[in-house]
Amino acid sequence: MDNKYVHGYTIRENVRLVDQATTLADILHSDTVYPAGCNVLEAGCGVGAQTVILARNSPGAKFTAVDFSEESLRTAEERVSSHGFTNVSFHQGDIFHLPYEDDSFDHLFLCFVLEHLPNPIEALLCLRRILKRGGTITVIEGDHGSAYFHPESSDARKTIQCLVDIQAGLGGNSLIGRQLYPLLKKSGYDSIRISPRMVYVDSSKPDLVEGFTKNTFIAMVEGVKEHAMRSRLMEESDWDQGIRDMYRTTEEDGTFIYTFFKGKAMK
Amino acid sequence: MDNKYVHGYTIRENVRLVDQATTLADILHSDTVYPAGCNVLEAGCGVGAQTVILARNSPGAKFTAVDFSEESLRTAEERVSSHGFTNVSFHQGDIFHLPYEDDSFDHLFLCFVLEHLPNPIEALLCLRRILKRGGTITVIEGDHGSAYFHPESSDARKTIQCLVDIQAGLGGNSLIGRQLYPLLKKSGYDSIRISPRMVYVDSSKPDLVEGFTKNTFIAMVEGVKEHAMRSRLMEESDWDQGIRDMYRTTEEDGTFIYTFFKGKAMK
Repeated sequence: MDNKYVHGYTIRENVRLVDQATTLADILHSDTVYPAGCNVLEAGCGVGAQTVILARNSPGAKFTAVDFSEESLRTAEERVSSHGFTNVSFHQGDIFHLPYEDDSFDHLFLCFVLEHLPNPIEALLCLRRILKRGGTITVIEGDHGSAYFHPESSDARKTIQCLVDIQAGLGGNSLIGRQLYPLLKKSGYDSIRISPRMVYVDSSKPDLVEGFTKNTFIAMVEGVKEHAMRSRLMEESDWDQGIRDMYRTTEEDGTFIYTFFKGKAMK
Repeated sequence: MDNKYVHGYTIRENVRLVDQATTLADILHSDTVYPAGCNVLEAGCGVGAQTVILARNSPGAKFTAVDFSEESLRTAEERVSSHGFTNVSFHQGDIFHLPYEDDSFDHLFLCFVLEHLPNPIEALLCLRRILKRGGTITVIEGDHGSAYFHPESSDARKTIQCLVDIQAGLGGNSLIGRQLYPLLKKSGYDSIRISPRMVYVDSSKPDLVEGFTKNTFIAMVEGVKEHAMRSRLMEESDWDQGIRDMYRTTEEDGTFIYTFFKGKAMK
């Protein structure tokens, strides 16, 4: 069960998620605005990286932020109150057994949650129950198979594949971004619209080189080195070369591309 | 020399390019508009698939469309005149030896040209000579390594890799989209801005399922089967499975993603 929620348990992950949300906030969240008075559930708020953005962008909405981890929730609560936002309440809970009446929420929001679940359709079905008819669900997920770069490197590709394999071994799916449409469809949602959000990085964008390619993506891959070595997924010398090759894409003539997928649908 | 310009030589390619431009015209070209009175060179116009769009979107501009192939030029000229446009003149010529004075054109436009050249920087340098200072160059290229889909299929990936390898064997580069920034930079252009244009296809977009996934991308891959078999790049049974797997992505729960890169820069 714990493996379902692998984010937010280490300081490194914690920093990464916050970096990620800060750097990508505009790309991912700028068009998510809820009207005043709405009840919005953020399912799987983690350490609150997205919660502060939701609270800021929709100051009149009332957010309920739920996470399985008490520790993550405490961090999230501190973060949100340190920003001075008072429109979020926090509750420990399991997405598959949330203690809310049918049709409780005007809107639902999930970001980087489904990728960790072995049964995302079941999660979407459980969430649909507590969504009002006519309400929306917004789901944001990455897709590690969407990453490519210049110069090409087969070692770099293999390090990324380690991340995909490790996540799969934990019951997750890091190729889930491209699957949001069929997942929402099979879970009974209507009016599904998928909006890909590409992060394209070249050296004319030093903030993204640092904030995304190095400090978000490469840091995330580097974070599973020990696991990958222990599982003998790659030789260490190939791994190290792959990481060097990924840093090579952050030089003057390198480029790096990754795509997040944002899905919005109605009950 | 002939291999540099592999498009436009067969009826199949001809139809494909026109399908492609019609389906993708909005995504790729809607923001390319030249002021009245400008002299614009389209280098490598091929059979005129893009030329008609340029002529339509900028009726006051004067276009010079150049291609190496007389046959392609005749087709392009017929296409443009059949649409009633009179603002394009056609000339046979080689990008590396164009008979124009320095600083002749206000703007330059190239679409799906550099991917066929073993020396794209040299081409960009030759073109820069005939561009006025302060004028713009617009370059559009695909990137076959940007393709991914659901459900995943290693056979389908291998068929796409055949296309990449075959193009490389002809001296081209079908992973060039991601490289536009460094290519323009190394060719001395300024104010480079790369704008990726993702084509995201799911079954809620039947026009793109037919017009892009099936009739553009899969058709393009299928077009090199004979070459791939002759070069023994794949077993035929694996190839056929790969093609079936790509069609599988066009079903109700499938998705398909491809990205073109549009670069704009100044002299």
